[in-house]
Amino acid sequence: MINMPNRNRNYAIVGTGALGGFYGAKLQKAGLEVNFLLRTDYEHVKKHGLIVESPEGDFTLSQVRAYHDAHKMPKCDVVIVALKTTQNHLLPNILPGLLKDNGVVLVLQNGLDIEPEVAKIVGAERVIGGLCFLCSYKIGAGHICHLDYGTITLGEYSEDYNSPKITNRLNLIAKDFKHAKVPIKLSEDLLLSRWKKLVWNIPYNGLSVLLNARTDELMANPDTLILVEEIMREVVAGAKSYDRIIPDNFIPHMLDYTHKMKPYRTSMKIDYDELRPLEVEAIFGNPIRLAEQRGIKLPQIEVLYRMLKFVDAQNQELERKRQLLSL
Amino acid sequence: MINMPNRNRNYAIVGTGALGGFYGAKLQKAGLEVNFLLRTDYEHVKKHGLIVESPEGDFTLSQVRAYHDAHKMPKCDVVIVALKTTQNHLLPNILPGLLKDNGVVLVLQNGLDIEPEVAKIVGAERVIGGLCFLCSYKIGAGHICHLDYGTITLGEYSEDYNSPKITNRLNLIAKDFKHAKVPIKLSEDLLLSRWKKLVWNIPYNGLSVLLNARTDELMANPDTLILVEEIMREVVAGAKSYDRIIPDNFIPHMLDYTHKMKPYRTSMKIDYDELRPLEVEAIFGNPIRLAEQRGIKLPQIEVLYRMLKFVDAQNQELERKRQLLSL
Repeated sequence: MINMPNRNRNYAIVGTGALGGFYGAKLQKAGLEVNFLLRTDYEHVKKHGLIVESPEGDFTLSQVRAYHDAHKMPKCDVVIVALKTTQNHLLPNILPGLLKDNGVVLVLQNGLDIEPEVAKIVGAERVIGGLCFLCSYKIGAGHICHLDYGTITLGEYSEDYNSPKITNRLNLIAKDFKHAKVPIKLSEDLLLSRWKKLVWNIPYNGLSVLLNARTDELMANPDTLILVEEIMREVVAGAKSYDRIIPDNFIPHMLDYTHKMKPYRTSMKIDYDELRPLEVEAIFGNPIRLAEQRGIKLPQIEVLYRMLKFVDAQNQELERKRQLLSL
Repeated sequence: MINMPNRNRNYAIVGTGALGGFYGAKLQKAGLEVNFLLRTDYEHVKKHGLIVESPEGDFTLSQVRAYHDAHKMPKCDVVIVALKTTQNHLLPNILPGLLKDNGVVLVLQNGLDIEPEVAKIVGAERVIGGLCFLCSYKIGAGHICHLDYGTITLGEYSEDYNSPKITNRLNLIAKDFKHAKVPIKLSEDLLLSRWKKLVWNIPYNGLSVLLNARTDELMANPDTLILVEEIMREVVAGAKSYDRIIPDNFIPHMLDYTHKMKPYRTSMKIDYDELRPLEVEAIFGNPIRLAEQRGIKLPQIEVLYRMLKFVDAQNQELERKRQLLSL
């Protein structure tokens, strides 16, 4: 286990979008050193900083530490991975040079089998996972609109998600986020937390893209309501194949919660509408493959997976053509 | 068993669309008496008759026996049901008065559990089933475009599809169709034939609507190709629950056949694009429910079913609005 020094920690944000930009801006506003890695928005953010609109109060950071090249960034105590998982092929080039000797990577990504991928690059003892319940989107370069929620559930990773526990370094990072007014929960079992999040993400992300529907439309139709519930049960079965028991009342609770939510366009639907690659492998493919390794089939999730792969391929083909035309 | 007289038979076509209009016109062209029941196209067809464009030769019937009211039609030896199954609620009012004492109903509809529904109205001993491998569509009122294929597989119905056999009356009807240059196959097991047709219809009709795709697009993408095959296997399992054994080489044969087909927009996709109600219950709901009665789950087909119900409901809502606007 890597021990983190009990002094001011500095942060790196790898992927300054609607999620990374939001949390990074909150941390900087609270007085912490935050280094932002950007690609397309680099020039703009270097010049103008970041703007966050939020029901909790709008704020502007007129100056931020913006970088275009990870190799020019200072080494950090906490490197937050806030890229979409579809960009994870970039991480082996970015992460190793960014970490202080005692530094850790905090992976704020959706899906399953995420931490092992990062562990291969920096070692399992340097990986922490986080699940964000955040509703935000990017209006323009360096301009983030926070709509609702924001809680992060943090959990330690260890090889194969064994012997999870809450560590001192987890508490230190939690302290920084709480100081930045980000609600934090600590998970004693990161893998269980990831499966629980998929209970919501798999049906709603998948069906919202495939049926061009918001959450309220999926809840109002009796057939999709049944389908959502059946798919949730498959996720619970997947979790069980790894001895993670999601309690019986969790599904009715999620359905009730979604009934009461404001009509919501899921993050995968936003990606789809913006012609961005979908996180199909992290959210659908990995759970299917992991359950399969334990001899459990998830046939209904597989239908969504295959269909999403089809529409994603079509979307990316469209995006290629669009980019060719705009060149 | 009803015996059919060995003399000239007269026919009724209930539902004079792309399918009923095509076969009815072929029968009349061959010299048989054919009485056509029409709804929206009645006035036009009464006045101008029917036009069939076909690679086998275009032809026009400038005069046909067109009816708007089933109760004014003469009694017939063979009443062909060529409505979409979504219109089957109309049959109890139409069929009983249309049949001669020895008359039979020939049901040319897609899906499963079709004959029992008609048997409830006219008695099982008066029901014959037929499966059409036809590619045709309606260009305008009384104007049918035949693209390809046309074979009908005929089979006797008896209570619960038991003790099927090839009867004299089946041969007589086959003779009429062959005389009209319609290729005919006789099935000794109508239920097996229906399940076999679903091996193609369920994956391609469902996915073509949900993914806005032609058959060639579904075959070219590796994920939908896998999905098509998995769904076909579920249909085979459904058939098996009724002791209908579809041989192992049937699925590769169907895939190969579809690979070689011209790019094809399925009939359900055409219905969807035209904002017509989809035959979801006959093609998806009934197979799922029938297999369920034998304790067999068809989870992947159920995903398609629920999603199709959702898009069908949305489509019908759109169509209602469209009609309101055009009134």
